[in-house]
Amino acid sequence: MPTPEASKTALVASVRQALAERAPERFADRLAQLAAPALADLLESLYAAERGPVWRFVPTQVKGEVLVEVHGEVRHQLIELSTGDELADAVQRLDLDELSDLYAELPPAVADAVLRAMDTQRRERFDLVRRYPADTAGGLMDVDAIAVRPEVTLGMVLDYLARYRQEQGRLPEELDSLSVVDLDGRHVGQLALSDLVSLGAEPRVQDVMDAAFEPIPAQTSAARVARLFEDRDLLSAPVVDDAGRLIGRITVDDVLDFVRDQAEHTVMAGAGLDQRTDTLAPAWSSARRRAVWLGINLVNALVAAGVISMFGGAIERLVALAVLMPIVVSMGGVAGTQSLTLVIRGLALEQVTASNRWPLLRRELIVALLNGLLWASVMALLANAWFGNAGLSVVFAAAVVLNLLAGVAAGTLIPFVLERLKLDPVLAGEVILVAFTDIFGFFVFLGMAAWLLA
Amino acid sequence: MPTPEASKTALVASVRQALAERAPERFADRLAQLAAPALADLLESLYAAERGPVWRFVPTQVKGEVLVEVHGEVRHQLIELSTGDELADAVQRLDLDELSDLYAELPPAVADAVLRAMDTQRRERFDLVRRYPADTAGGLMDVDAIAVRPEVTLGMVLDYLARYRQEQGRLPEELDSLSVVDLDGRHVGQLALSDLVSLGAEPRVQDVMDAAFEPIPAQTSAARVARLFEDRDLLSAPVVDDAGRLIGRITVDDVLDFVRDQAEHTVMAGAGLDQRTDTLAPAWSSARRRAVWLGINLVNALVAAGVISMFGGAIERLVALAVLMPIVVSMGGVAGTQSLTLVIRGLALEQVTASNRWPLLRRELIVALLNGLLWASVMALLANAWFGNAGLSVVFAAAVVLNLLAGVAAGTLIPFVLERLKLDPVLAGEVILVAFTDIFGFFVFLGMAAWLLA
Repeated sequence: MPTPEASKTALVASVRQALAERAPERFADRLAQLAAPALADLLESLYAAERGPVWRFVPTQVKGEVLVEVHGEVRHQLIELSTGDELADAVQRLDLDELSDLYAELPPAVADAVLRAMDTQRRERFDLVRRYPADTAGGLMDVDAIAVRPEVTLGMVLDYLARYRQEQGRLPEELDSLSVVDLDGRHVGQLALSDLVSLGAEPRVQDVMDAAFEPIPAQTSAARVARLFEDRDLLSAPVVDDAGRLIGRITVDDVLDFVRDQAEHTVMAGAGLDQRTDTLAPAWSSARRRAVWLGINLVNALVAAGVISMFGGAIERLVALAVLMPIVVSMGGVAGTQSLTLVIRGLALEQVTASNRWPLLRRELIVALLNGLLWASVMALLANAWFGNAGLSVVFAAAVVLNLLAGVAAGTLIPFVLERLKLDPVLAGEVILVAFTDIFGFFVFLGMAAWLLA
Repeated sequence: MPTPEASKTALVASVRQALAERAPERFADRLAQLAAPALADLLESLYAAERGPVWRFVPTQVKGEVLVEVHGEVRHQLIELSTGDELADAVQRLDLDELSDLYAELPPAVADAVLRAMDTQRRERFDLVRRYPADTAGGLMDVDAIAVRPEVTLGMVLDYLARYRQEQGRLPEELDSLSVVDLDGRHVGQLALSDLVSLGAEPRVQDVMDAAFEPIPAQTSAARVARLFEDRDLLSAPVVDDAGRLIGRITVDDVLDFVRDQAEHTVMAGAGLDQRTDTLAPAWSSARRRAVWLGINLVNALVAAGVISMFGGAIERLVALAVLMPIVVSMGGVAGTQSLTLVIRGLALEQVTASNRWPLLRRELIVALLNGLLWASVMALLANAWFGNAGLSVVFAAAVVLNLLAGVAAGTLIPFVLERLKLDPVLAGEVILVAFTDIFGFFVFLGMAAWLLA
């Protein structure tokens, strides 16, 4: 049996060849057999220019789901490649939480048409989902939770599910448990399907349900929801409003998407990239997006250059300063990045809070001091052997230790400051840190040298 | 109702206070109510020195699960804090996939005792799990899959589950579907619990099962398993051996742990940190682990310093070179990091393969050229206004463009080379890239300047 990796590479290659030979109908049958995630993956693996001809052969009934699955930039491109009618038709069938993710990106005329085509119940539910921000439990939930009453028997629940299925055509996806609600719609417990299938028909729901199961309040942050799912090994969880009334259900697939998305954000933002970046976008659009990041970095580098130029005279008299100064700066940047990374992770996991900020800073400073003394001694000996200038070696070693201390202090504290300013520590942290260690490092090394040596 | 965030911070604070007042018995009751993941989270949020007294009050029957949940460094500490008997007792109750994760870290005497205490069936199953590497489907699976025959009715399946539960005490966790196997144990389909609870007792399994459900071969890589779960929105999936025989089952909670772990690895390794790093470890052990990374960086910086010293004479004659050279180097590093990050992500998502390596490199080079021309022009004008030296400005601009091109070329190709060498691109990529852009940047800028200007 072919491995999934091999079959994907083969699929991309065969689609690409059919396109090159201008015979797209050759892969139409193949596309019709693929599920939406596989289609999304295929489209993302093609170059931007190849996506149009392939998109045309994707059946309309799965186009909506494909749009949900693809990353932001590719999604934008595919929406532009579609007609309004086709889009309205494609998104009509989506789950409401998916539709709500997509809704803001639809052309206004399409969004209007979609709203008008909804029946009253679907419209009301959609308004409920849209009331909560996308990064909260309310934004992640779907409104298809099945609720049963505590006083009925398991046999009655089985009958109810069979009827539900006949009327609705299907049960909600990823069903592992049912919510139990009282007459006011308040969540009172959770009934596992595995209990439902193994305890016989007689027991009452209230006697076998998990009454201690805590539902998730709709305002809970998505990051916290992900932690709850991981900590409690949940497959799905009910969502309740302020009054404790059941309003929806979060399933683990949405949580997995969120975790993956957060992880991508952390990695990509660290390099100044949007996680929605299309890996295979054309050069021109990539260049525009990246120019800004290079420009920000350029401003930093110019300020650092300004600091160096303040000490031009000292460098002219002692050119070894120009040789050693990048070492001072780079050691501070590396040590600071380690503290920054550790604190950003600690904040995300809630292991680091304002309450242990100062002990953590003290720990980081001790680490920097220990490593600073170790490596500064080694470097001082090397610098002395190289330039035969004991004074320079001592100044160099002192600057390395000071910049390491400054780097870890900045790396530890910057995330707290950015968090208070409601800025993204992942995106802004590294830039600010490196600007700081560059400027401080050049200043302290060249300044001490100019004062003591030249 | 208190938010989960607030209650965790309050818990950590109250435990810490009880420890400070030497009254640990005050939180013993509280600990007994916490589930293993919450206990693990609490222990990780305490300083290393506080963990011993708390660990003593964790009930033995959850200690095993807590050990599975905590990160590597903290796990190592907790194992050292436990007696052998306690450990053997604690891990005895674990699922076999969890035990197999932990097994290698147990003291040899404990590991032996655990093996000897197993009955033959459990021992055989454990050997099966351990046969597969931890980062494959076989390593992720648990061996508690429930199998039914295709020719029985749904009513008979319900009876079987009720009996299974009476005999075993419980059903496997996170049960959303049952595997259907033929007389040889080969997987022939999957029966969803939601079908089992809504289609009545009469239908035969073979008429309602999903016969197209593809089981996961045991050698499939864990990364691919995670992609399959995401692409197909799975809650659990059967695992089969080479002959297609059912040997186990992977549940989504293990996949979520893997995805989270991979994400942490990517973030932490980028800063030269192990993802198992204990955020709140004591200074001394942190310092030892980080010293190596600083040392590697120091070697890089020394080589770059060596390049600068080759052109000491030119710098002495034209000190502006020392002022501008960090800009050349930093722009190349930033642009290269963007390419590197994009390619590493593309490789992980299998959007980038050997087949589109060269078109991607061309795209990255065009992006670098466009941005290089833009920012190099700006910088040349600035440098000219600053130093009034047209020749220097042209050399500076040319060096920036060349180092941007070199940076993106290196950033694009390094991950492919590292992957072929079976090295981790996340850990080694950035170090090699920065060494390259530093050395190349200094060399090309100072070299051109020495040749043309000084």
